[in-house]
Amino acid sequence: MAKANAVYAQSGGVTSVINGSAYGVIKAAQESGIIDNIYGGLYGINGVLEENLVDISQESPADIDRLPYTPSAAFGSCRKKLPSLEKNRADFEKIIEVFKAHDVRYFFYNGGNDSMDTAHKISQLSHDMGYDVTCIGVPKTVDNDLPVTDNSPGFGSVAKYNAVSLREASFDVASMHHDSTKAFVAETMGRHAGWIAASTAMAGTNENEGPHIILLPEIAFREEAFLAEVERIRAKVGYCVVAVSEGLQNAEGKFVADAGTVDMFGHTQLGGAGDFISNLIKNKLNIKVHNALPDYFQRSGRHIASKTDVEQAIAVGKEAVRLAAEGLNGQMVTIVRDSNTPYSWSVGHTDIVNIANKEKVLPVDYIREDGFHVTEAFRTYCQPLIEGELWPDYSGGIPVYSQLSRNLVPKKLGQNT
Amino acid sequence: MAKANAVYAQSGGVTSVINGSAYGVIKAAQESGIIDNIYGGLYGINGVLEENLVDISQESPADIDRLPYTPSAAFGSCRKKLPSLEKNRADFEKIIEVFKAHDVRYFFYNGGNDSMDTAHKISQLSHDMGYDVTCIGVPKTVDNDLPVTDNSPGFGSVAKYNAVSLREASFDVASMHHDSTKAFVAETMGRHAGWIAASTAMAGTNENEGPHIILLPEIAFREEAFLAEVERIRAKVGYCVVAVSEGLQNAEGKFVADAGTVDMFGHTQLGGAGDFISNLIKNKLNIKVHNALPDYFQRSGRHIASKTDVEQAIAVGKEAVRLAAEGLNGQMVTIVRDSNTPYSWSVGHTDIVNIANKEKVLPVDYIREDGFHVTEAFRTYCQPLIEGELWPDYSGGIPVYSQLSRNLVPKKLGQNT
Repeated sequence: MAKANAVYAQSGGVTSVINGSAYGVIKAAQESGIIDNIYGGLYGINGVLEENLVDISQESPADIDRLPYTPSAAFGSCRKKLPSLEKNRADFEKIIEVFKAHDVRYFFYNGGNDSMDTAHKISQLSHDMGYDVTCIGVPKTVDNDLPVTDNSPGFGSVAKYNAVSLREASFDVASMHHDSTKAFVAETMGRHAGWIAASTAMAGTNENEGPHIILLPEIAFREEAFLAEVERIRAKVGYCVVAVSEGLQNAEGKFVADAGTVDMFGHTQLGGAGDFISNLIKNKLNIKVHNALPDYFQRSGRHIASKTDVEQAIAVGKEAVRLAAEGLNGQMVTIVRDSNTPYSWSVGHTDIVNIANKEKVLPVDYIREDGFHVTEAFRTYCQPLIEGELWPDYSGGIPVYSQLSRNLVPKKLGQNT
Repeated sequence: MAKANAVYAQSGGVTSVINGSAYGVIKAAQESGIIDNIYGGLYGINGVLEENLVDISQESPADIDRLPYTPSAAFGSCRKKLPSLEKNRADFEKIIEVFKAHDVRYFFYNGGNDSMDTAHKISQLSHDMGYDVTCIGVPKTVDNDLPVTDNSPGFGSVAKYNAVSLREASFDVASMHHDSTKAFVAETMGRHAGWIAASTAMAGTNENEGPHIILLPEIAFREEAFLAEVERIRAKVGYCVVAVSEGLQNAEGKFVADAGTVDMFGHTQLGGAGDFISNLIKNKLNIKVHNALPDYFQRSGRHIASKTDVEQAIAVGKEAVRLAAEGLNGQMVTIVRDSNTPYSWSVGHTDIVNIANKEKVLPVDYIREDGFHVTEAFRTYCQPLIEGELWPDYSGGIPVYSQLSRNLVPKKLGQNT
């Protein structure tokens, strides 16, 4: 097989370890024997559409080696979801045109279900246009909602961030509750699936430790039952720590955050699910509540990433190149759980159509019967994913993260975007 | 001097390192030659008032040794501020009565300005009542607003937490801003002084790195100038990261969070300063904004504590016992900065009345002339305080923190509280 060039691009919300996958792809590409130059798409698929391709060969080895220790997307990410081929054939044709101009025959797209849809379409259209591009998906999402794969790189670290932070906040409230804060609410990411909210359960080592209640998007919110559970916990432990998914919905399937709830003063409430829950506790139970919204801190908290997660992120990147070298196309790399005790895993792959635009929510047997917490089966699933620490270097009190120079490959199609 | 017993108690909002001071006091007390038994006040001064004294000798050496690695207040904290002697002599007399019953002649109170006020009054009244109790204050506050001392244990770690988290979130927004989030707002603690908000400056190593704007409680908020600064930053960098103190005030001296601001739909806004600022950016500049509210995560984030801070927390605890052994009374331990380059420090002490009920705000020369950031002088001050890492042990993916058994000393005055 003649050597050709490759493009690697990052897509969707970033994670603490997506750059570990970049590192895996880059290292494997350099050793693959099939890839001449590996380019980075600047801001995901936008970089291809705009012919902004980063010349990775110009980056320093030190910056490349630091990628697995660096959060965010080193090449920039995007939220662009390409519409169907019928509706927007021009964009897809432009992508193929850019690939052709730069002799790109391999495309590694690192993202979630939307990105797999894009990769799938490019693979199809390139074939139809007579310029075959091998497209391999590299999984990434803090939401952990990709089907087929046992878990997605990014999840283990957001889970560890939330478990550690909720543990620390629970200790805080335990200290203060005697004459001050009696309840604490933390809102987690995960708009459609409860994996992240569920992972906060790993903060506690027994049922008296927080979080005492976990509100999942899979379970419709029941105000009275929730308030009763808060009171039950308070009577038992003295205080109550609640984790709530940003995607919590009411019985009508509306996000509680958007439900137009009116507070005791007649004001329509703005804010998210965490605000909603903390205001509810404050107004109905008349106790002091604090609430936290870690937002991007949780998905970019590389300083507390899971070692398992970093290792898996690197491995799926490397495997993507191996699959391409093997001649496979239209596949996404998966993580396969080979055993629970001791935990062992390997990489696999699946047809990308099994992933594109599909979501895996929390299975019923991971949710406690009353809907307010997780089961032991979930803990068994989640435990190995948050295991291990892999600290970045520090200088001047803050982590040293890779900052690529991102020099662009000279354009061949002009500057039209 | 005949040996007597001592009480150590923790007060006010907790920190990542207050238990380091507990460790310092306990270790020094055991070696002091003046202290027979050291007891812990359960939930601060409440433990004395309620005669709930923890028998520290019953704790395992492993749990004691782990205290400097454990956030929150291991003995429980309190928000109780005792009113003046005139208004509530009974409480003070009860405290002396409990001390007398348990042969307590030393009281180490670990807290902020309110706590120093309490310690001062106890010292005075015990003398008036003919039962002298030596009261030594051990400084603690994330707010860093205690006068005289160069800095307060707790601040270095909350500063490091916020610097690291803002750095990571800035990398996140830098990745996403091409076609998604263009501004990010993080609300920090510090209702009356801007030390914590200012410390977020340590996240960036040059002016293009976030946070680009820091809104301090010392500077009245000016909406137009702020929005212009956001636009200036966006034109230059592409995105804008803002840190805002929870105590940001408008020109009338009202907290912006309570100012009854009405949004574009006519709803009165609830929520804090971070919500206020992010809604303002969204509504006036019409760009995608995310906001984070770390709340208790920041002050209990022991997993990312500063080594300097932990060492100083231990040192001020030890010094408190040494001052007592030297026969001093009514003093608070201070941290003295001996030099900046290289940073060196020592412990000192000051009369507790110099601390009680006083607040040290951010000096003018630490604030950039336009009021939207800090100066190099502030960076020089803050840098050494966030230096160094001292990781806790991990087990099962989460930190191993000390959990004391807190067995109580048998009561001698019955169960009346």
